[in-house]
Amino acid sequence: MRQSSKLPHVVIVGGGFGGLAAARALAHSPVRITLVDRRNHHLFQPLLYQVAMAGLSPAEIATPIRSVLRGQANVTVLLAEVTGIDLEHHRVALAGGDLAFDYLVFAAGAQNHYFGHEAWSEHAPGLKSLDDALEIRKRVLLAFERAERAPVGPERDRLLTFAVIGVGPTGVELAGAVAELARTVLANEFRQIDTVKTRVVLIEMAPRILSAFSEETSQAAVEQLTSMGVEVRTGVSVSNIDAFGVDVGGERIEAATVLWGAGVAPNALAGALGAELDRGGRVVVREDCSIPNHPWAFAIGDVASFTEKGRLLPGVSPVALQQGRFVADLIDRESRGLRRPERFRYVDKGIMATIGRSRAVAEKGPFRLRGLPAWLAWLFVHVWFLVGFRNRVAVILNWAWSYITYARGARLITGSFDPRPSLAPGSIVDPDADDDPLLPPATPRDRAASA
Amino acid sequence: MRQSSKLPHVVIVGGGFGGLAAARALAHSPVRITLVDRRNHHLFQPLLYQVAMAGLSPAEIATPIRSVLRGQANVTVLLAEVTGIDLEHHRVALAGGDLAFDYLVFAAGAQNHYFGHEAWSEHAPGLKSLDDALEIRKRVLLAFERAERAPVGPERDRLLTFAVIGVGPTGVELAGAVAELARTVLANEFRQIDTVKTRVVLIEMAPRILSAFSEETSQAAVEQLTSMGVEVRTGVSVSNIDAFGVDVGGERIEAATVLWGAGVAPNALAGALGAELDRGGRVVVREDCSIPNHPWAFAIGDVASFTEKGRLLPGVSPVALQQGRFVADLIDRESRGLRRPERFRYVDKGIMATIGRSRAVAEKGPFRLRGLPAWLAWLFVHVWFLVGFRNRVAVILNWAWSYITYARGARLITGSFDPRPSLAPGSIVDPDADDDPLLPPATPRDRAASA
Repeated sequence: MRQSSKLPHVVIVGGGFGGLAAARALAHSPVRITLVDRRNHHLFQPLLYQVAMAGLSPAEIATPIRSVLRGQANVTVLLAEVTGIDLEHHRVALAGGDLAFDYLVFAAGAQNHYFGHEAWSEHAPGLKSLDDALEIRKRVLLAFERAERAPVGPERDRLLTFAVIGVGPTGVELAGAVAELARTVLANEFRQIDTVKTRVVLIEMAPRILSAFSEETSQAAVEQLTSMGVEVRTGVSVSNIDAFGVDVGGERIEAATVLWGAGVAPNALAGALGAELDRGGRVVVREDCSIPNHPWAFAIGDVASFTEKGRLLPGVSPVALQQGRFVADLIDRESRGLRRPERFRYVDKGIMATIGRSRAVAEKGPFRLRGLPAWLAWLFVHVWFLVGFRNRVAVILNWAWSYITYARGARLITGSFDPRPSLAPGSIVDPDADDDPLLPPATPRDRAASA
Repeated sequence: MRQSSKLPHVVIVGGGFGGLAAARALAHSPVRITLVDRRNHHLFQPLLYQVAMAGLSPAEIATPIRSVLRGQANVTVLLAEVTGIDLEHHRVALAGGDLAFDYLVFAAGAQNHYFGHEAWSEHAPGLKSLDDALEIRKRVLLAFERAERAPVGPERDRLLTFAVIGVGPTGVELAGAVAELARTVLANEFRQIDTVKTRVVLIEMAPRILSAFSEETSQAAVEQLTSMGVEVRTGVSVSNIDAFGVDVGGERIEAATVLWGAGVAPNALAGALGAELDRGGRVVVREDCSIPNHPWAFAIGDVASFTEKGRLLPGVSPVALQQGRFVADLIDRESRGLRRPERFRYVDKGIMATIGRSRAVAEKGPFRLRGLPAWLAWLFVHVWFLVGFRNRVAVILNWAWSYITYARGARLITGSFDPRPSLAPGSIVDPDADDDPLLPPATPRDRAASA
């Protein structure tokens, strides 16, 4: 231990794809590593919408960071909130203490962003953390429960209307998943409402959905969404969101549940570094992912603004993973006295988005997939990269089961809530009575007599 | 539907073992059923402690009530809070409306009880709902995380001390599970603390643990707990519980985490019925489980006080299940114009308690099991009765996996929390530095120079 402290100390901020990849890649390097995260788990973000839609349990897409790194003796994992970073003095400030570093890997990821309309966050939760997903799951499931208790009319219709606001895959995935949940899983479970009549509106602020994909693919996605009964509105802007619905392009959509897939911003710490930021608030980094003038401090993944051949790398997991490994290699070489690599090069793995049961789209360069083949490719890639073998098995089992039976594994409402539809008391009645249930009903004996 | 309302309306309050059993047993009866529960899921209580100890995910022990009953056309499930019951006028009052009934099956179950020390509930959470379990899971996991950040000394010791207050199986199960978690699952995942040194104290207020079992079995349980390093204190009374520990039998135990397995009381609605209650607050029922003077209202399970051969039936699931089926049969016969059965007879299924990995005790009449055989019996019985085939598979898979690898599936901390140990800021330091980390550390270049 004594001489271990002579080894350079690498502080990694964030246990997401980038940070975890960097930590693992440094397993055999002559360094001491401290990985700090404010959550105890690494989250497999691409499947988070499945938790929000009650398809998977949180534990199936999240693994404790310490258990991922348990075998790696040169890593200490700290559950702590980073309150500031001082690049000049090589300091990471934690609530409760400071960390000194020789190398910094800043991989704090992204958070929901409402473009100045923070008030909307209460009515339209975003999807970045497990807590977000559980909140969305609760809202979606409660909407159907409340609708079952609401009288026929506008209130019930509002409860059975879901608006998803998106730009990109998250919105598409959420809209498809809500429609699927309503039309398959929940069908026949309610007596008063017909969940198949559920209205799902995808409000895409961009001119077309999945604009990162080709025109052709984007069109294929629209067709698949429409075939599931999702109304797709593109190129419209949202002027207001409240507890009862959305104002979009001059039109009012009464919706009890509004979901936000429209934007993320880098972790607020990025702004506190005193480094140059791009328009999106990301830290502009050099070709080796280092922060200008701070050759021992690196920003990777969603907090970094890396431009390659004039184009900004997207905020997707392959970028974070590859940058994490690159930075780890750089640190490893330098700490061994070798020359550090000068330029990170991104290997494009292609992009995909899932829409629903055997519906998806995928692209890699000239290759395009849609429908079942795309969905299977998506399934394979995502299950394959899940952290932790057990989770893979559990997820496959879970999906196979849901696929065959349309059952859903995690349809639980937890935490506090009020199951009442927002209407006057007294309107809940003995569901299929044709007599006024508030009059004393015939008792079995009376019935026997009258029989 | 029109003539369906001529059928007697059975209102079941509570979707636990008793209520659900009654609803299912009435599947082919000429009745309309409304099952009301304030939660959307049926909970497999006997495995709840496994969720609290991060062994299982909530969805593995809970199933939406609607999906259990989806195929049963004569049942309507309502997610609603029952605010009152009027036996005279055959009314169940819901927040948001009323229900009229011909038959009432009151099966609202039990809740945590602190014997007048309600203030303790904040410091020593009980274990009755999924929310309770998730709260306990968070506290237990956070205690270890905080200990990792605490300096050697009393604060760290306090964080690594767990006190479980119990009378009966829940306390034993929790104490055993905490010890197991610390000694196997978490071992080697922390760098600053040795979780194997975790102190677990089981404070049993009764003269001996598992007093419902024989002396011999109770002794066997003590031996198994001790072999896992659990300190067992019996026949002691708790005089105070605060945020820092427990005062028990004149002694002070500094413990950051205190768990309450010491008592439950029937749902508060029992007191509002205006019926006779026993000392424990349960509704005293007649031999056919009906409430005296209300032959069409029944109380079953944990809310009922049923005396057989001078002894009160215990608050265990087999009692609730059997009473639920009995009442359903009674209602079925009467609604068909047949003579109603006069007396419920309990078939004792025996009792068991699990202590840990291949450690348990079981008794049925003269038969006694301990250790692995008891544990396998426990495993079989509990997995077998899990509602929903999928859950059974998932649970078996999960347990097999944990058993082989000592891994835990659901070690997630969700919701808001403060990861700091309760100590002065500035005391967190670069974990294994021997120099003061708050001085600028040597940079790689300096190091190269000095090399």
